[in-house]
Amino acid sequence: MSHQKLLFTPGPLTTSETVKQAMLRDMGSRDVEFLSVVTHIRRRLLELGHVANGSYEAVLMQGSGTFAVESVLSSVIPSSGKLLVAINGAYGHRMAKITTVLGISCQTIVGEEDRPVPVERVRRVLAEDPAITHVAVVHCETSTGMLNPVVELGSIVRELGRIFIVDAMSSFGGIPIDISEAKIDFLVSSANKCLQGVPGFAFVLARRDLLEGNEGNARSVSLDLVAQWRELEHSGQFQFTPPTHALLAFQQALEELQEEGGVEARAARYSANRRALIEGMTELGFDAYLRPEHQSHFITSFRLPAHRRFDFPTFYRRLSELGFVIYPGKVSNVECFRIGTIGHIFPQDLRALVAAIRQALGGMQVDLRDPVLGSRERAIPRSQP
Amino acid sequence: MSHQKLLFTPGPLTTSETVKQAMLRDMGSRDVEFLSVVTHIRRRLLELGHVANGSYEAVLMQGSGTFAVESVLSSVIPSSGKLLVAINGAYGHRMAKITTVLGISCQTIVGEEDRPVPVERVRRVLAEDPAITHVAVVHCETSTGMLNPVVELGSIVRELGRIFIVDAMSSFGGIPIDISEAKIDFLVSSANKCLQGVPGFAFVLARRDLLEGNEGNARSVSLDLVAQWRELEHSGQFQFTPPTHALLAFQQALEELQEEGGVEARAARYSANRRALIEGMTELGFDAYLRPEHQSHFITSFRLPAHRRFDFPTFYRRLSELGFVIYPGKVSNVECFRIGTIGHIFPQDLRALVAAIRQALGGMQVDLRDPVLGSRERAIPRSQP
Repeated sequence: MSHQKLLFTPGPLTTSETVKQAMLRDMGSRDVEFLSVVTHIRRRLLELGHVANGSYEAVLMQGSGTFAVESVLSSVIPSSGKLLVAINGAYGHRMAKITTVLGISCQTIVGEEDRPVPVERVRRVLAEDPAITHVAVVHCETSTGMLNPVVELGSIVRELGRIFIVDAMSSFGGIPIDISEAKIDFLVSSANKCLQGVPGFAFVLARRDLLEGNEGNARSVSLDLVAQWRELEHSGQFQFTPPTHALLAFQQALEELQEEGGVEARAARYSANRRALIEGMTELGFDAYLRPEHQSHFITSFRLPAHRRFDFPTFYRRLSELGFVIYPGKVSNVECFRIGTIGHIFPQDLRALVAAIRQALGGMQVDLRDPVLGSRERAIPRSQP
Repeated sequence: MSHQKLLFTPGPLTTSETVKQAMLRDMGSRDVEFLSVVTHIRRRLLELGHVANGSYEAVLMQGSGTFAVESVLSSVIPSSGKLLVAINGAYGHRMAKITTVLGISCQTIVGEEDRPVPVERVRRVLAEDPAITHVAVVHCETSTGMLNPVVELGSIVRELGRIFIVDAMSSFGGIPIDISEAKIDFLVSSANKCLQGVPGFAFVLARRDLLEGNEGNARSVSLDLVAQWRELEHSGQFQFTPPTHALLAFQQALEELQEEGGVEARAARYSANRRALIEGMTELGFDAYLRPEHQSHFITSFRLPAHRRFDFPTFYRRLSELGFVIYPGKVSNVECFRIGTIGHIFPQDLRALVAAIRQALGGMQVDLRDPVLGSRERAIPRSQP
């Protein structure tokens, strides 16, 4: 459609026309045709995680990604359990907050937001505190774009006999991962991230024996992961009304992932998107928040320029008027904004975005390369002119 | 689309083509354009409930209707509170189950499923038990089609100084109701019922002072109604990713409700739908489960015929093959099936359904009017031939 803006966000993101067109159909949520859609999606998700061997299960959950994260924490940690969360950003903090509200015992390791979570501290804490039963981490911290070392962490957690929960919201489907090899017991992700569906539900890839062992532990009826799984197994249905149209879109999105060449091909495209973005943004004088070696190809945080004529609301609005939607920042102590490189977008779209950014800066009379008025101004102490 | 079956279900239901087409667009969930959609929807919902006077608030919640019911029970009953649920069907029982899981003190009055909830028993229990702070009831029990006397109940609950929570999932938008006049403090409904949107979220119309008084009471992060309201007020945004496409569809659905002539006109159409259904079904020899005076025009439960050649799975499948999706039963002690009369369907669609039912019965060699083999067979004691 002509008024469709391109979204450079962490999701909801730009989806293909054909994914959206799959929603032009009403299906009965208990009808056999719809149940076969659900069954197909669950099987494909297990295949994408390389765990379609019977020892893992795919459980879909209505709502946003946070609903699915809460459903895992609420359902699979018994009242005697204790969670360790390794945190380096807003989404790690959110997991800790959920345990507080649910009354689950929790300890946190809070690292710097511009560093990967400290793996050796996790090992130390686990060795010292036998009460800890579960460990949780965010794979890609959407707040910064940081990619955390889940494979390394998984080895330690398994070695020390704990259960490993990974929030892979922004990463699953956009980077190859073998869930079983990475020793992940519960992986959570969402329909409207790298799998390029529309928002409405999220999903959990879970070890089957751990679902079976957690019957009746949930602190919620709606977010009871085990009851949802049992119902999906028993009748093929969700416990409660599913977002049927979002599921039809997701089925089409999974089809298109396969046509693109699978997760590897998609990761290559996202990586090319990010290269096009960084090249252009560097040339314009923007600074990325993370060092390149920690940076994922899903989303990039840029420092807000200190240029006196730059202000973010104006910048955002000008870009939006040009048809490009970017995303506000979420780093706790540094002013940033974010640009996503996932969704049905391609390197030429990132180059078009960079051109629009150049135009928006021009309109604001901002030149970040200017040695006096530009972003380097930040380095000048405030007392100087 | 040619393969579109008509849905005679309590939702997800048949929506108009234009409602579905509104989903052909990706919107940033934090973009100003989308926020104006959310604001518009919230205002229209208050208007539909006749409570756009500043004393009520509309709070949207991701997930199915049950998610929104749980968000209310979880968020607005303090730990010192106690809920009384007046029950005459599966959805009343579900509210009681939610309080059990959430650890909220709860008492139930369980009436017959084919009778309205016993209003005078509610008055008696409230008079006897000062610990009860909240009363909950289902307006239209979707399990049977029963319409409960919420206005009468509301008077009693208010008179006795308690807070009144109404699950109006299957009724709101399909029958005129003035929320304030009915003395309802929290009303819960869903996008994909009488308002004819697609599934993905539900909503709560809530007394503003009661939201303000329940800060921090929620037993969940995702389903925290008060925090969701605060965020909608503060930034215009959902706390967590909303189903953007479902909201666009809903905005269009509200537009079409207005074009139809508002809630009164819609109620008249649903009523005509139901008359066409009952006329045809009676002629075919089916028995409705409820007496006409208790029956809503949203959904009707029919007893499963006892005819020896009738079986429901075959009946359902034959109808589905003819392009008509009906709904299984949910009465606890009587075998039933259900037919919904809500959604973008019209009396001629109900007549077409009846014709398809006649054809399906013919294919099964079932004639319910046959005095020996027909449904009256049920009246014959089993010991006779």
